[in-house]
Amino acid sequence: MKCGVFDSGIGGLSVAREILNAKLFDEIIYFGDTARVPYGNKNESTIIRYSLEALEFLKNFDIDFLIVACNSASSVAIEELKKEASFPVIGVIEAGVKAIENEKKDANILLTGTKRTINSQKYQHLLKQKGFKKIIPKATPLFVPLVEEGIVEGKIVDEVFDLYFHDIKKDEIDLIILGCTHYPFLEKSFKKHFKNAKLIHSGQAIVKMLKNDFSLKEKKESKIKLFASDNPEELRSRAKEWLNSSQV
Amino acid sequence: MKCGVFDSGIGGLSVAREILNAKLFDEIIYFGDTARVPYGNKNESTIIRYSLEALEFLKNFDIDFLIVACNSASSVAIEELKKEASFPVIGVIEAGVKAIENEKKDANILLTGTKRTINSQKYQHLLKQKGFKKIIPKATPLFVPLVEEGIVEGKIVDEVFDLYFHDIKKDEIDLIILGCTHYPFLEKSFKKHFKNAKLIHSGQAIVKMLKNDFSLKEKKESKIKLFASDNPEELRSRAKEWLNSSQV
Repeated sequence: MKCGVFDSGIGGLSVAREILNAKLFDEIIYFGDTARVPYGNKNESTIIRYSLEALEFLKNFDIDFLIVACNSASSVAIEELKKEASFPVIGVIEAGVKAIENEKKDANILLTGTKRTINSQKYQHLLKQKGFKKIIPKATPLFVPLVEEGIVEGKIVDEVFDLYFHDIKKDEIDLIILGCTHYPFLEKSFKKHFKNAKLIHSGQAIVKMLKNDFSLKEKKESKIKLFASDNPEELRSRAKEWLNSSQV
Repeated sequence: MKCGVFDSGIGGLSVAREILNAKLFDEIIYFGDTARVPYGNKNESTIIRYSLEALEFLKNFDIDFLIVACNSASSVAIEELKKEASFPVIGVIEAGVKAIENEKKDANILLTGTKRTINSQKYQHLLKQKGFKKIIPKATPLFVPLVEEGIVEGKIVDEVFDLYFHDIKKDEIDLIILGCTHYPFLEKSFKKHFKNAKLIHSGQAIVKMLKNDFSLKEKKESKIKLFASDNPEELRSRAKEWLNSSQV
C-alpha cells in the first residue's frame, strides 16, 4: 500500500514523519512543490491548478491515499482533488478538527497558523460546526522562517512567543491547533510557554484518522521517497535532519 | 521624465522612497510582482522571463529609466533587460558597488543579503574587481520576514543581530552593504549595533548614480504610481507606511 504526501514545500515533512513512524504504508511518496512555494500568497484558482498537477504526478506511483499536507491547498483545493482522485484524499485541516471532536465544547482553543490560513476562516468554520465556542485565532507568520532557519527554541523563539501571545492568558489555554505544518518543529517551545495545553499536530491527526476511519494497521516496514519540483537536495537534507530516518 | 521601478515584491519600496524623495523624475511607476514573490528560490531562466515581463508592462508607461530594485533580478537578468530596453536599466547591485568605489580598498566590508544573493557571489565578484579585499559575506534571511511583519527594532531584532553577527568584531566594520531591499528599514538597528560603520543603502546608491552618471536634476514635484500583480491593497498600505507620502 502506498501513500502520496503533497505539500507546497518542506513543511509537510512534519506530517510525513508521523505517517512514516506509524508504519501505515509500505511506501510514502512525498512531493514538495518547492519551485512554486509558498502557495499562501497565490490566488485560489492557481492553488487548485497546482494541486491537481501534484495529484497527476503522484498518480504515477499508483498511490492508494493522498494526504494534503499543505494548509493553503487543504483550505481551497480539497474538493477538486477528491473529484479527480479514485482514492481517498485527506487534508490537514479536516484531520486537525476531527482529532479534537470529542474534546469539551467549552475548551479554550488557541488556533495558530499563517495569515492566509487564519484569514481563510476554514478552521474556525469547521470548529464552530463541531460545536466549539471559544476559539482564539492568532496568525503567527514568523514561525515559518524561524523553523526554516532551524531556530526552534531559545531566546529568539521566546521573544517571538511573547510578541504573539502577550495578551493571552497562557495557563487557561486547553488546546492549541498547530495550523501550519512548520509549527510541530516548535513543539518544545509551545510546551514551555503553554504548560496546560494539549497540542494538536496535523501529522498525528492524520495518523489518527487513517487508523480510525480507514482501519489501517502497522506494517513491518515503511519507506519514503522524496521528490521536489526545485532544489531536491535541500528537501533531502531537511528530511535527513527532520525525519530521523537513515533511509532518506 | 518617468522612471519604472521593478521588484519581486514590496521591498523595493525602500528604493522607490529614495528616488521619490530626491525628486529626480516627474513620475515613478512601481511594479511589484507580488503574485510570484519571492524570486530568490526560482531558477535563473524563470527570473529572466519574469523580469522581461515586468519590463514589457512598464513600457506601457513610456518610462525613460528602469531601476531593478530586486537583488535576484539584478544578479541574473540585468543583461537581458538591457538588451530589450531602449532606455537605461540600472540594478541595485551595480549601484551599490559603484557607491563605494572611492572608499579605502582595505576597508572592512560587511556584506549582508539573502542566501541567494550571498551565494550568487555577484557582489563579491564586483567588489573584488574594484580592488576591495576584506569582504565578510553574511546571509541574514530572517531580516526579510521581520521587516515584512513591521518588526524593525527591539528585543527580537537585537537577538537576531546577535545570532548572525556574534562572531564579528563589530567596531572594526567600516562599511555595511545592505544587500537586500528590505534591510534599509532596519537602519536604526544596524546603526545601534555597528557604531563605526557607514551603511550602503541601495536606494541612496541608485540616486547617487542617477545624479552623477546621468546628470539628473531635482524636479519641482515627483509622484509615484503603484502596481502589483497580486494584492495591490497590501502594497498600497505598505507604501503609505514606508514612503511617508500622502499622495499614495
